Amino acid sequence: MSQETGIHVKIAIAQINTTVGDLTGNIRRILDAAEKAQDADLVVFPEMTVPGYPPRDMLYDASFVEAVQAATADLARQARHLPPLLVGSFAPSGEKHYQHPALHNIAYLMKDGEMQTAQVKQLLPVYDVFFEPRWFVPGKKTLPPIEIAGKKIGVMICEDMWDEDYSVHPGADLKAMDAEMLVVMSAVPYRKGAMEGRLYHARRQADSTAPLRGSTQDGCIPIIFVNLVGATDELIFDGGSFVVDGEELGRFEEEVQVVDLNTKGTKSTKDLKGEEELFRALVLGVRDFARKNGMKKACLGLSGGIDSSVAAVIAAEALGAENVTGIAIPSRYTDPRSTESARELARNLGIKFEQVSLEKMHETSEQVLGPDRSGGVSGENIQARLRMIILMSTVNSGGGFLINTSNKTELTLGYSTLYGDMAGAISPLGDVTKMEVVGLANWINNGLEVEGGRFKIGLIPDFVLKRKPTAELKENQVDPFDYEVVSPRLERMVLADESNAMMKASEHKRWQMGVVLKVSERAFGRGRMVPMTRK
Amino acid sequence: MSQETGIHVKIAIAQINTTVGDLTGNIRRILDAAEKAQDADLVVFPEMTVPGYPPRDMLYDASFVEAVQAATADLARQARHLPPLLVGSFAPSGEKHYQHPALHNIAYLMKDGEMQTAQVKQLLPVYDVFFEPRWFVPGKKTLPPIEIAGKKIGVMICEDMWDEDYSVHPGADLKAMDAEMLVVMSAVPYRKGAMEGRLYHARRQADSTAPLRGSTQDGCIPIIFVNLVGATDELIFDGGSFVVDGEELGRFEEEVQVVDLNTKGTKSTKDLKGEEELFRALVLGVRDFARKNGMKKACLGLSGGIDSSVAAVIAAEALGAENVTGIAIPSRYTDPRSTESARELARNLGIKFEQVSLEKMHETSEQVLGPDRSGGVSGENIQARLRMIILMSTVNSGGGFLINTSNKTELTLGYSTLYGDMAGAISPLGDVTKMEVVGLANWINNGLEVEGGRFKIGLIPDFVLKRKPTAELKENQVDPFDYEVVSPRLERMVLADESNAMMKASEHKRWQMGVVLKVSERAFGRGRMVPMTRK
Repeated sequence: MSQETGIHVKIAIAQINTTVGDLTGNIRRILDAAEKAQDADLVVFPEMTVPGYPPRDMLYDASFVEAVQAATADLARQARHLPPLLVGSFAPSGEKHYQHPALHNIAYLMKDGEMQTAQVKQLLPVYDVFFEPRWFVPGKKTLPPIEIAGKKIGVMICEDMWDEDYSVHPGADLKAMDAEMLVVMSAVPYRKGAMEGRLYHARRQADSTAPLRGSTQDGCIPIIFVNLVGATDELIFDGGSFVVDGEELGRFEEEVQVVDLNTKGTKSTKDLKGEEELFRALVLGVRDFARKNGMKKACLGLSGGIDSSVAAVIAAEALGAENVTGIAIPSRYTDPRSTESARELARNLGIKFEQVSLEKMHETSEQVLGPDRSGGVSGENIQARLRMIILMSTVNSGGGFLINTSNKTELTLGYSTLYGDMAGAISPLGDVTKMEVVGLANWINNGLEVEGGRFKIGLIPDFVLKRKPTAELKENQVDPFDYEVVSPRLERMVLADESNAMMKASEHKRWQMGVVLKVSERAFGRGRMVPMTRK
Repeated sequence: MSQETGIHVKIAIAQINTTVGDLTGNIRRILDAAEKAQDADLVVFPEMTVPGYPPRDMLYDASFVEAVQAATADLARQARHLPPLLVGSFAPSGEKHYQHPALHNIAYLMKDGEMQTAQVKQLLPVYDVFFEPRWFVPGKKTLPPIEIAGKKIGVMICEDMWDEDYSVHPGADLKAMDAEMLVVMSAVPYRKGAMEGRLYHARRQADSTAPLRGSTQDGCIPIIFVNLVGATDELIFDGGSFVVDGEELGRFEEEVQVVDLNTKGTKSTKDLKGEEELFRALVLGVRDFARKNGMKKACLGLSGGIDSSVAAVIAAEALGAENVTGIAIPSRYTDPRSTESARELARNLGIKFEQVSLEKMHETSEQVLGPDRSGGVSGENIQARLRMIILMSTVNSGGGFLINTSNKTELTLGYSTLYGDMAGAISPLGDVTKMEVVGLANWINNGLEVEGGRFKIGLIPDFVLKRKPTAELKENQVDPFDYEVVSPRLERMVLADESNAMMKASEHKRWQMGVVLKVSERAFGRGRMVPMTRK
């Protein structure tokens, strides 16, 4: 074989789904994964395996820091009978850092009941959703490769691989220290098309100007990228671990696999494209939000519009149809076909369906508040907020959480009611533009393949797909935007961190949104730090 | 005079209130301040004077970065006829930084229509509400003192003064380069007792082991601390600029003053204590939120409880009584004395007062939703949310914004209704514990001195102060907490970044809060980055 690397070490990739702060659960998963890889020479885990990622300001809690250290040491002892593990955790660096003990982000090698520091992360990202220098200080130098089965394995931690714009180059250091292969322990969140960047940087690391020990004939050394899978709040970690030009693990699911460094990979079927990738990311985001917060049930409003229809499909797939309740709340302005479509969608999905008429509450509000306060836009807001009350009463009496159904385009415009249709603990479509929602709906309707089968073709009723977008908050209302033009234009503006008057005027609304699952480069969430008060 | 420094240079402190992104307005204020200090040798402004502080991710907008540079250069030309200015702004460093041009946080000396870099900030904080390495790279070395009126003046920018935990020491560098005095251009946000830390660090900088040129007989050199005043979202900048052991400028207000470095200060009357300091901070926070967002009017719910009473006093002082509307929304569970007290408070304050009965909307909701959804805690939430609808209908029909009246203790416990009493664009008391609210109320009732006079003694009705705290959401309800015990205990927990089950369970509610004015070391806001999803 021309691509024979001469590397006969057996590496297991343990792409597992940890929960921030769940030390007992995370250690259980680590041990379970290692048990499945008994014949490996080394089992490699994602970054920050023991504490879960990202713990953020929990790292300011001294008792948590201590508990993680104790749990990490304990894991090393418990793993005595298992193959050597590369596990992510942290430890105080000994320095002081903003009135707290400074921490190192560490890869530990655990072997024969002992643990040693295999690497300390040097590149600490502070952009987008990353704030690592807030808690961590960088490692002072690249630690040499570890030796496993007679081979020198260079260990890197996440951003250490993305070193192009930095002055420190851990990968090059490791190759200079005779690394015969590299492993990268990562927690890289999903965004559309993210796989491409990861492959580019992994290839860049694997490359070397001169053949090194263990390198293939094309001058590269093998590199294994191990990524976290699972979601924490707005961040969806998509897994997709891989060997460069070799095997790939599944996206959006746990997997443990002993990889063969000598197998030249063909284009993987697991490399999802477009709508399918996006859909599965959102499903994982909603599923883990529920599971990791100890909830099973969710409810959402079904308007007979495209956004709530797609959100319902995501919810059903994430939580199981039996755990989802769709509630249609028609008003005097609602087209009967809207409610009929909502009911049909619920039937197609197998989710619970309820219908509550808005009229009585709407009418009483108008009587109490008078025409000034209940007319015009103020009156439209009242309808949206009464719907919130109905939806939240289901959540508050029956448990679970409210799923928000807004899309990114309307959130960008502020074309939505604060404490009304903007309510919800989690927003699966808040980072998905209107045109992307349309794309998802059409893709779903082609007969979406799901766990345990396939959704029926035409799952989302025709009326939903063909109607003009409308909030149905007054007579014959249609959304005053041509979404085909507006949706991509606004998205470009958000990506460039520009804003217009409508964006500025609605900043206070987005400030008060629940979790918006991040799937783009610039999502409305904790990674977009724009002051509300600005000119 | 024993404290004669031999420094006869006349420095003007320009403690001005800038607005993020309002380049025209900020430059107007800079020029106006400089006009008032025509006889000074140097006019010193706060950090980031031209762009306003903090611009945060607006710094990712290339057009904004360009506009600030152009405005800064233009200011230098416009200030040709004025005394030399030290103005804060920024410029690209020439490096690349996370896919954006890296920026330097710069102090410019503007003189005779020209500008030169006087200092580049080296210490970039990344804790609490600070995220500076996200946009900036540090200056590579300390630039030498500038020469003004024959004296060497060392220039520092904000965190450069807080160098204890860093390995770089700009103040010491400047003294080693023969600085005869130091000026610190700052944007330090308020928190209770913040003056103490500033004085400590300023004194530390002024100190030197051996007398240097220009130093006083006690071995110190003069140091002038210039601070921003005004609020941006949750951050309140309190001014309070000072000369160490010399003059002090006002707190919470703009002021331009030529300071005399040879005057030994007595304890200033401007150094506010306790409740007065806190009250004035909150007033500035609400006032600037309204003004800088182009709003005049606000409305809030008046329950006859202590939190909404104190919030109303703050609102009246911040916006003018004529711009504030208090709305009492009694329900079947409301003690008539609650509403009477709300009305009396409004009368005492001179704010508008309205009363809307909740009963009809409450009753209709119960009919529509049935006993399961409208009973128990779910029913209590419905009442709180109907009140939100009534309050927001006033805002939506009449303009302005809703002021939230929650206190920090109930927010910590999650003893409040999401989209109900947790609604509001800004929360003046969301970082003020229950016991601190009680302290404010008692202090107010002693006859609060305000602009243009004095509030009457006993402004807040006796019933409000003496009653047991209650949400009045069911018959004979009282809050199930002993706040004297719980309030300080929870505050200690928040400060230590610990949490209990109630805090964890209510994280999703606080995630969706509006702006919470920060007055403590750990406020619920953008500076507290705790994952909602955690174990």
